[in-house]
Amino acid sequence: MDVLILGAAGMIGRKLTARLVADGNVGGRPIGRLTLADVSPPPRPNGADDVASLAIDLAAPGDAERLVAARPELIFQLAAVVSGEAEEDFDKGYRVNLDGMRALLEAIRAAHTADGYCPRLVFASSIAVYGAPLPEPIPEDFHHTPLTSYGTQKAISELLLIDYTRRGFIDGVGIRLPTICIRPGRPNKAASGFFSSILREPLAGQEAVLPVPETVRHWHASPRSAVEFLVRAARLDGREIGPRRTLAMPGLSATVGEQIEALRRVAGERAVRLIRHEPDEAIMRMVETWAPAVDAQRATRLGFTAETSFDEIIRVHIEDELGGSLPS
Amino acid sequence: MDVLILGAAGMIGRKLTARLVADGNVGGRPIGRLTLADVSPPPRPNGADDVASLAIDLAAPGDAERLVAARPELIFQLAAVVSGEAEEDFDKGYRVNLDGMRALLEAIRAAHTADGYCPRLVFASSIAVYGAPLPEPIPEDFHHTPLTSYGTQKAISELLLIDYTRRGFIDGVGIRLPTICIRPGRPNKAASGFFSSILREPLAGQEAVLPVPETVRHWHASPRSAVEFLVRAARLDGREIGPRRTLAMPGLSATVGEQIEALRRVAGERAVRLIRHEPDEAIMRMVETWAPAVDAQRATRLGFTAETSFDEIIRVHIEDELGGSLPS
Repeated sequence: MDVLILGAAGMIGRKLTARLVADGNVGGRPIGRLTLADVSPPPRPNGADDVASLAIDLAAPGDAERLVAARPELIFQLAAVVSGEAEEDFDKGYRVNLDGMRALLEAIRAAHTADGYCPRLVFASSIAVYGAPLPEPIPEDFHHTPLTSYGTQKAISELLLIDYTRRGFIDGVGIRLPTICIRPGRPNKAASGFFSSILREPLAGQEAVLPVPETVRHWHASPRSAVEFLVRAARLDGREIGPRRTLAMPGLSATVGEQIEALRRVAGERAVRLIRHEPDEAIMRMVETWAPAVDAQRATRLGFTAETSFDEIIRVHIEDELGGSLPS
Repeated sequence: MDVLILGAAGMIGRKLTARLVADGNVGGRPIGRLTLADVSPPPRPNGADDVASLAIDLAAPGDAERLVAARPELIFQLAAVVSGEAEEDFDKGYRVNLDGMRALLEAIRAAHTADGYCPRLVFASSIAVYGAPLPEPIPEDFHHTPLTSYGTQKAISELLLIDYTRRGFIDGVGIRLPTICIRPGRPNKAASGFFSSILREPLAGQEAVLPVPETVRHWHASPRSAVEFLVRAARLDGREIGPRRTLAMPGLSATVGEQIEALRRVAGERAVRLIRHEPDEAIMRMVETWAPAVDAQRATRLGFTAETSFDEIIRVHIEDELGGSLPS
């Protein structure tokens, strides 16, 4: 089957691409053509000559239609402007995160009307759809009260995904990702970046800044889990999910203090001493409104799993990003 | 102050217009210019020569900007395609109920950027944002799982209203209306129409069709209450509401059987005998997914009230629509 990854140049998109190329199939069905799309042409994985790479702007007239013309049976929609950037640039956030999603859905609907096309669309949503005050854990049936434009755009996209699925235009599955930790590479504009950098930088022997108290509790899963979520969502039987087509993904609820304890166990006191406490009121105010823990029973029943300790999350990072061992 | 009513030609819009013209003020502040807008020019109330009436299409380029040019301090956004029509005509529903709302919000934001304009925007949302399975009553913090495109469009508009308010572009208040009963006049395309017609028609000595069993329970308020909700929402202090700017309105939870008992008490057995039971599977399947009762504690604390019996709802109809007494 043909597979399309939107937002393929992002961190999760690249990991998903590598996974699909390695597997060569999704749920036992061989992958024919794999198309990668992003604002800049995503890098092709080594040795994967049959992978197409495209620069696209989903919200621009014609771009979504062009992608849908090949009738990919499976589409991963990961394209998004992150929380910090959507907050800084109101127009860009709505354009990419809402108009882009809508253009994609409309292009699919037009194709559906033409020939009955109805792809599985896996949409990466976020716990940013929740906003304080929040119960702990957040129940499956808790309302969405986002306190960022990013969270608003994700909540709206979830509603569209469900309505287009109910009408039979797409076969959608939305997965509400925890904060992904440890993000490899350089920090992006996500305000949640420090959750990763306080582990990533010390593991690499470098200083990191912690802008919030160690008591802050948040909801995490590794990049490896995120990719596993996406692949599992691609294979799910829609009838098993039911009409509520968005699922809160499992994760690990941990305080910053617990993250640091895990770092101490894995990398020692020297690593922990690289974390500099520099309270930042603005970040603290934002983080206080975020999800500390989410009830993910529905997803768990459908087979989704995540890490159960921060030691495990750190080990995943060492295995997947640092070649299996810490730099000496 | 200048007031703009969008969707002023609809049933609630006309009643709100009459109320504002009669009051001459909102919360003690005299109304300067009152502008009525709808797809066809709304009727001007008798003797109100200073009322402007405009034909508009909010989703058409330039129309929202034209309305905002006069900088109305208070805007009622009642313009919508109803549930049945939004389900029949997917494009029209999204165009009017979502694109129209977005165009309005964007026009206001542009004006805000130009000169700090920030009107109170009262948005009429609906219990259609809820979808079965539903607890009874539906808690304030229950998630929105609409099972119609109309409900999806209302849920999305609520999210936009809250985000634009949070960013300071508007001063929004969303009110989630119960099913309005007894609707005067001819049936519209709302699938909920029978809740009104089984009372309205017999009260006028005419036959009505009941397509669902008498055990069906639903959530109601009179047109008079709906107008009172809108006027109260216009006057609320935003700080009292808090960041969750949409409020579930109070109402009356009643079964169809209880509606009929009230009809019997008010208009006698002869009226009840005018109700013909003609089960309609399609309507029954839709109605089963609707809200039977809603917890409206937040709105109640802010002073919103509704009828407490169907006898009262019928009396309101007789007073407001039938000149105070039943036809003999």
